[in-house]
Amino acid sequence: MKILIIGANGTIGKKLTPQLAKQHEIITAGRNSGEVRVDISSEESIKEMFQQVKNIDACICIAASGPLDNFSTLTEKQLLEDFKGKLFGQMNLVLIGQEYLNNNGCFTLTSGVFADIPYKGVTGGAIISGGLHSFVLSASIELPRGLRINVVSPSMVEDSVADFGYLFPGLKAVSMKELVDAYEKTINENITGQILRVY
Amino acid sequence: MKILIIGANGTIGKKLTPQLAKQHEIITAGRNSGEVRVDISSEESIKEMFQQVKNIDACICIAASGPLDNFSTLTEKQLLEDFKGKLFGQMNLVLIGQEYLNNNGCFTLTSGVFADIPYKGVTGGAIISGGLHSFVLSASIELPRGLRINVVSPSMVEDSVADFGYLFPGLKAVSMKELVDAYEKTINENITGQILRVY
Repeated sequence: MKILIIGANGTIGKKLTPQLAKQHEIITAGRNSGEVRVDISSEESIKEMFQQVKNIDACICIAASGPLDNFSTLTEKQLLEDFKGKLFGQMNLVLIGQEYLNNNGCFTLTSGVFADIPYKGVTGGAIISGGLHSFVLSASIELPRGLRINVVSPSMVEDSVADFGYLFPGLKAVSMKELVDAYEKTINENITGQILRVY
Repeated sequence: MKILIIGANGTIGKKLTPQLAKQHEIITAGRNSGEVRVDISSEESIKEMFQQVKNIDACICIAASGPLDNFSTLTEKQLLEDFKGKLFGQMNLVLIGQEYLNNNGCFTLTSGVFADIPYKGVTGGAIISGGLHSFVLSASIELPRGLRINVVSPSMVEDSVADFGYLFPGLKAVSMKELVDAYEKTINENITGQILRVY
């Protein structure tokens, strides 16, 4: 399969990309690195990417991270700003990409544990992930030409504990292997409309 | 308790309001009817409402309905438009209202079944409801002064079947009594961070 990985150079991408490359043809994409440059917060940039990269069987997005926020001063304006990349960016990949992927291709998006388990300071991130889950359920019954869609919902990964662990006391980190396995499952198994909770 | 009901004149509100009025002091609010006029898609209008109506113990929102959409032509612009009332409007009620409700007061929002069970043509509504669920989980651990928050997630109600039933073949309608009971539960029981699925 020909797989486009957006965010191939990030914490998860660095481990996932070489693993998938053992069996598949990989095209890496990212804002500041990768064979193709894309800013997923821009519909135009997403369109240009799909026009440039042809005959894709799978599109995996592990690009955007969730925001931190202060609930007592949180506003609609800040939420809209925070939604751009990880929520609208990933939804736009699907809404735009549905015209470009090969028949029976698949999308794999990335949400996060805060959809289900709240922590202080990540309300925006929680809404993004909860919204993505319901989007994926809907998209799975709407997508044309046998296209599949799934979303991986990771907890903090072990490779991020040193940098972010102090923000989420008590949150159990998951192994990179477990997480990479989940992304691989969305590629190799004929599943759709699944939320793969890795925590 | 002094309860502000936004959308008191809607399908659900018409049944809920007299039921709650048996035991509580009710203030009705709505865009085109009610003792107080409010457009929940406007932050300014929400602020004016809370400044006008003092000493509220509970704020129930059953105001906004979900959109219908066509997945193959759906865009970020349309989603943003659809999110205004039911998603951002209800979140703004909480983000702004957290300063105004009495100590130990409570918010009750309204989502919908499509967060969990997809139907064609309601992707925007699904994202709104899924996002609201995760927002309520987060808000429940963030709100100050003992404030509580819950969300009622109804399926289609029996009183709407004649108008909307044809859009959702096979979707089981819920009785108004069951639904009214769920809203009452959020007022009368000391629960928070709950998603009350009524379907």
